Amino acid sequence: MEGEPTLRLRIFDLNCWAIRYLSKRRQERVRLIGDRLCQEGFDLVLLQEVWSEQDYSHLKVKLAGCYPFSHYFRSGVIGSGLCVFSRFPILDTLLYQYSLNGYPYMLQHGDWFCGKSVGLGVSLGITAPFLSLSLQLHAEYCRDKDAYLPHRLVQAWELAQFIRHTSKAADVVLLGGDLNMHPEDVGIRLLRGWTGLRDAFAEATRFEGCKNGCTLVPDNCFTDKSELLPFPLGIRIDYILYKAISSFTVKCEELKTTTGSARGTDIPFSDHEAVMATLHIQRQGQPASATLGTADLALADVVTEARTEVGVGLRAARRQRYSSGRMAVLALLLLLLQAAAALGTLAGLGAEQPFPKLSFCLLAFLALGVLVLATGLHLFHTMEVKMLHGTEDQMWMALRALQERP
Amino acid sequence: MEGEPTLRLRIFDLNCWAIRYLSKRRQERVRLIGDRLCQEGFDLVLLQEVWSEQDYSHLKVKLAGCYPFSHYFRSGVIGSGLCVFSRFPILDTLLYQYSLNGYPYMLQHGDWFCGKSVGLGVSLGITAPFLSLSLQLHAEYCRDKDAYLPHRLVQAWELAQFIRHTSKAADVVLLGGDLNMHPEDVGIRLLRGWTGLRDAFAEATRFEGCKNGCTLVPDNCFTDKSELLPFPLGIRIDYILYKAISSFTVKCEELKTTTGSARGTDIPFSDHEAVMATLHIQRQGQPASATLGTADLALADVVTEARTEVGVGLRAARRQRYSSGRMAVLALLLLLLQAAAALGTLAGLGAEQPFPKLSFCLLAFLALGVLVLATGLHLFHTMEVKMLHGTEDQMWMALRALQERP
Repeated sequence: MEGEPTLRLRIFDLNCWAIRYLSKRRQERVRLIGDRLCQEGFDLVLLQEVWSEQDYSHLKVKLAGCYPFSHYFRSGVIGSGLCVFSRFPILDTLLYQYSLNGYPYMLQHGDWFCGKSVGLGVSLGITAPFLSLSLQLHAEYCRDKDAYLPHRLVQAWELAQFIRHTSKAADVVLLGGDLNMHPEDVGIRLLRGWTGLRDAFAEATRFEGCKNGCTLVPDNCFTDKSELLPFPLGIRIDYILYKAISSFTVKCEELKTTTGSARGTDIPFSDHEAVMATLHIQRQGQPASATLGTADLALADVVTEARTEVGVGLRAARRQRYSSGRMAVLALLLLLLQAAAALGTLAGLGAEQPFPKLSFCLLAFLALGVLVLATGLHLFHTMEVKMLHGTEDQMWMALRALQERP
Repeated sequence: MEGEPTLRLRIFDLNCWAIRYLSKRRQERVRLIGDRLCQEGFDLVLLQEVWSEQDYSHLKVKLAGCYPFSHYFRSGVIGSGLCVFSRFPILDTLLYQYSLNGYPYMLQHGDWFCGKSVGLGVSLGITAPFLSLSLQLHAEYCRDKDAYLPHRLVQAWELAQFIRHTSKAADVVLLGGDLNMHPEDVGIRLLRGWTGLRDAFAEATRFEGCKNGCTLVPDNCFTDKSELLPFPLGIRIDYILYKAISSFTVKCEELKTTTGSARGTDIPFSDHEAVMATLHIQRQGQPASATLGTADLALADVVTEARTEVGVGLRAARRQRYSSGRMAVLALLLLLLQAAAALGTLAGLGAEQPFPKLSFCLLAFLALGVLVLATGLHLFHTMEVKMLHGTEDQMWMALRALQERP
């Protein structure tokens, strides 16, 4: 099978930080991104945090010439923020929404409202049909005391399972996105170990861009400098990952990142740096050997570590479920007591004393509010417990399968 | 490849109607189901509506001898109710939760709280690895004025897409579940057309059981007779569907349903009848011809019909989103007016008139309640619009692909 056609695939990945009314100089930046994409002519563009469908429509019109195929993934209250532009036809899409994604009452973090998901597009390249995934995982707001770690691990696990189950008939899998995890974090190790995906930064023959491939750097005028204090060089949380499944090989020829300002302007594209990879896809005579199975022991360790963290999250969720349930019961009791008192007064008991209508009303109001809130929280944490427990179970099944492998 | 091993696979599918505190004679029925499963020794058992994990645990202990492998799928507030028992090892599982599943405020219907999903188990039979899916779609509460039709169509579409994307490397796909749709409904036609799944009832060489394969029959003492008035023979809403993907053929030798009471007792297993199929799986020399592509025109009609219904749902959801948003704005305005009045009173304006504290409090209470509720509804319907819109888009993409097919 020598002389088989090869494909040089150029991929662009960026977290666009395009939140309406909140992101600085949004429209200007979206215009700049569109300009650059037109000039460079990539093959595949994976964007995240395009929260406004209007921005997507503008980009779609602008890019229609060089990227005739595109898809916007809708989910959640605000949207998934994910979209894909492609030079190759997008044959099919599928959206998988993570079962856990933060807490609705953490309004300042807002992850819950986004309906974070992974969007999958099946495209047909010249050589091979490939799956491309665009995604974003739950943000890390505090590295030292990371309350969202179990949620992010559930997402990483679900993502890995989703990739394993959907990629079996694909020739090449490409994943680009803001994983919100450092390269050595357990979630990344879990995702890479369980799917066999390879990190374009680590595999690239040539690299050009921010030191260590960082994508959140202090040089970018939009980044929050206080967040990056412990990391003077910046952090790497945006990735392009890939793997070949059947009789193909994929090599990363070159990886680039932007370095602060966009070419010829004074502002960067986003608070994240863009990641651009050039991949070299070629058909091989014999099927590529499976990446899985070579390091089962190390993989079992990673799964065990992740399962421990999920267990920690499960216990916390159970405590919260219990305390919100208790709060709801107490509020209900208070309301019942009040109802009894009101009925007693109506029946003429204690008529010699004046009935404190105003404070009675205020108290009832408070009790009802607490009841509604606590019930909502109880339902939410019940769901959380179910999903964490389910993931713990699945990880256990995976560990058993790893251990039983000959 | 003559003389290849064949596999006779016996499948049992039942909607168990095991809702704690609500379902009649639940424990007795779960015991009966366990007894029957032990006696008959099926290969694969797909159960729905096992809402209590305790019931699952009892069954698991009881069936450990004949069905050494099992899995319970957790999701939503109450759970998914899905579980699988198998004589073959379950290698991997995946749960896909539908993005739309009724309304949280329709408490009497309760579908929203169940986290309805499709559970996927990968098993390794003697001849072939197969995917088995256990699932339940949104219930139909009123056939004439079916407000949930768009949601059920979104679920049918997501299910079909999920099957298409996950089954590519499987040899055989088996699906058993309560689809809550009559055989000729658009959702069933969509699911079958888009995936190529075949209906065991229609294909069976031998059939034994309720007339027309009905699974909700008036003879069953637990069914709601008023619901079945327009259908004196009953309705068929529980299905076993299957297809062979690679070089295998699957034939349905026999299909049976229970007919009211369980053998030797006075009560049925559930308000639904169980469906039992015997499939004959054999390897073939050449790959089985794809079921898709043979009737693209008919399929395009079905997708168009489904898309129209989803569009109707989308317009309704948009109206509800608008009216709940307007209600929230009005409530907010009322609260602001009240705040202004209260401030005015505090500042000494209108001091000559008595301030009606109680009615003021009650009105504020009402306005706040309406604000919270209307905001919640607005968020929910925003999500609904996103998902319906996304599905409409995906169906359009599918139609385009069908039309462009040579």
